[in-house]
Amino acid sequence: MYRPEIKVVDCTIRDGGLMNNSQFALETVRAVYKAVCGAGVDYVELGYRNSREFFSSDKYGAWRFCDESDLRKVTDGVDPGDTKVAIMMDSHKAFATDLLPADESIVKLVRVATYVKDIDKAIHICQVAADKGYDTTVNIMAISREGSPFLDEALDQIESETKALAVYVVDSYGALYSEEVHFLVEKYQMHVKTKEVGGHFHNSQQLAFANTIESIIKGANFVDGTLMGLGRGSGNCPTELLIGFLKNPKFKIRPLLEGIQNAILPLQQKMTWGYHLPYMIMGLINQHPREAIQWMEGDRKDDILEFWRQMTEAYGE
Amino acid sequence: MYRPEIKVVDCTIRDGGLMNNSQFALETVRAVYKAVCGAGVDYVELGYRNSREFFSSDKYGAWRFCDESDLRKVTDGVDPGDTKVAIMMDSHKAFATDLLPADESIVKLVRVATYVKDIDKAIHICQVAADKGYDTTVNIMAISREGSPFLDEALDQIESETKALAVYVVDSYGALYSEEVHFLVEKYQMHVKTKEVGGHFHNSQQLAFANTIESIIKGANFVDGTLMGLGRGSGNCPTELLIGFLKNPKFKIRPLLEGIQNAILPLQQKMTWGYHLPYMIMGLINQHPREAIQWMEGDRKDDILEFWRQMTEAYGE
Repeated sequence: MYRPEIKVVDCTIRDGGLMNNSQFALETVRAVYKAVCGAGVDYVELGYRNSREFFSSDKYGAWRFCDESDLRKVTDGVDPGDTKVAIMMDSHKAFATDLLPADESIVKLVRVATYVKDIDKAIHICQVAADKGYDTTVNIMAISREGSPFLDEALDQIESETKALAVYVVDSYGALYSEEVHFLVEKYQMHVKTKEVGGHFHNSQQLAFANTIESIIKGANFVDGTLMGLGRGSGNCPTELLIGFLKNPKFKIRPLLEGIQNAILPLQQKMTWGYHLPYMIMGLINQHPREAIQWMEGDRKDDILEFWRQMTEAYGE
Repeated sequence: MYRPEIKVVDCTIRDGGLMNNSQFALETVRAVYKAVCGAGVDYVELGYRNSREFFSSDKYGAWRFCDESDLRKVTDGVDPGDTKVAIMMDSHKAFATDLLPADESIVKLVRVATYVKDIDKAIHICQVAADKGYDTTVNIMAISREGSPFLDEALDQIESETKALAVYVVDSYGALYSEEVHFLVEKYQMHVKTKEVGGHFHNSQQLAFANTIESIIKGANFVDGTLMGLGRGSGNCPTELLIGFLKNPKFKIRPLLEGIQNAILPLQQKMTWGYHLPYMIMGLINQHPREAIQWMEGDRKDDILEFWRQMTEAYGE
């Protein structure tokens, strides 16, 4: 009944790091790593390897840079099972020269996040990473705002110029409905015939898990989740829901519940991901959640009408 | 682009009343009523009209009984626009004799909630209600547990023996995935050819809004929501998301945001609907959320592993 090709990537620390400048305590990252490995999830993404040229070490925590020495502090002494370590690089904020040869690294998968406009940077990083021995994916962000022919061209380039395992539909704004997910997965499949399609969805409209399922139904074989949905703004598809849905017996849900209980529930005291109307509003109007995140950090977070007024003024209704 | 046949029922007070024994302050109910009317939503369900034979007035608030005098306290002085008042009757906990003739009532729609086993009681209430001048629907609960031929028979009876406007797929346990929603809506349509199909979904697995969309895609024309998803356990499809999705220009979202800000956000201090792992677990194992609701009211609500252990012991994994 299950499709063995499906690979799940847990990106709790990476996407969650967008809510706290990647300032997770080492023990939190270790607990997430243990949970994901114990559950038999295919990949665990431990953060970004972005450049200190763009991010200051004063403001951002270790998981924005993922130095090998920090990664090893996470994995030391934990049985990884079949789980592999992934990191993400932003095509416009990272340099391929920051990758060691793969045989000197514990990283197996490098995911390159990019806007369509930066696709040539992304392809360059992919090529260098592949030459150094890594698997790669290309994750095309803000896809709900990409209606241009440049998307098609980017997909064709990824197909012909990279060894990426998968190309992702990334709904950064949490704006997509199921019919749009179907359309995009099918569009990708037409262009990227030798690679898998991936799906990464945000939960602004409570559709992250649903859209993940819809992408799977259409054939996507790389799908992302985070524990309890921890991630930017409203957050992501909860890994525990995704593992509950997938029927591959290699997956176990209990270790995920344990990781959530120990490492994620305590974070709810200080981090405000999840379903909140400011995030919902940004998904509804198909915009980046940054203003909503700011609003939620301010002292008027429950003044929804004022936020709605400001956003409709700024972006039209 | 929109389908004018689609009717939206906001059931915030009715379904939310399952989390507080229908003990809402009058001002809360009035704020919800104003919001729903202002938004142009088709129906507003203000509670149950269940019998005091089954529910004590000491323990349960006015919105479990919906006496006409209490309903009028809600609607007095508010412009209803085109919004009509609905109430729900449980087929096994209500009596048709508690319905006035429709022309002496402000209620327009009587929704009869029933299990398949009680379908003859439901049909009786529907018939009496129709004779008294009300529109009716039949809402078949716990549908994710109905695999028996009695469901088909019940649908045939509703078709031939009632004047119901619609027959609902009610996912009381929040257990359905999109493919099951498609299957059920199509099954209903085969049996209930002269009536609409309705959809009411719970959010245990964050799929209430998504499943509502999927039911609409398959042709369901009666769909339910609640403000901010307030409802039993994880809650329901948020009305504000549903109205954001539907394109009928008669709908307005701002009054809903106002109602949420004024009447619903304050309830979050004392009521724990939404995405919590105990509710999620009950959806995942396709069980009634009652144990999860109890667990969330206790002092060990974050001990997810112990709840998981007890439920897998009780119901198998």
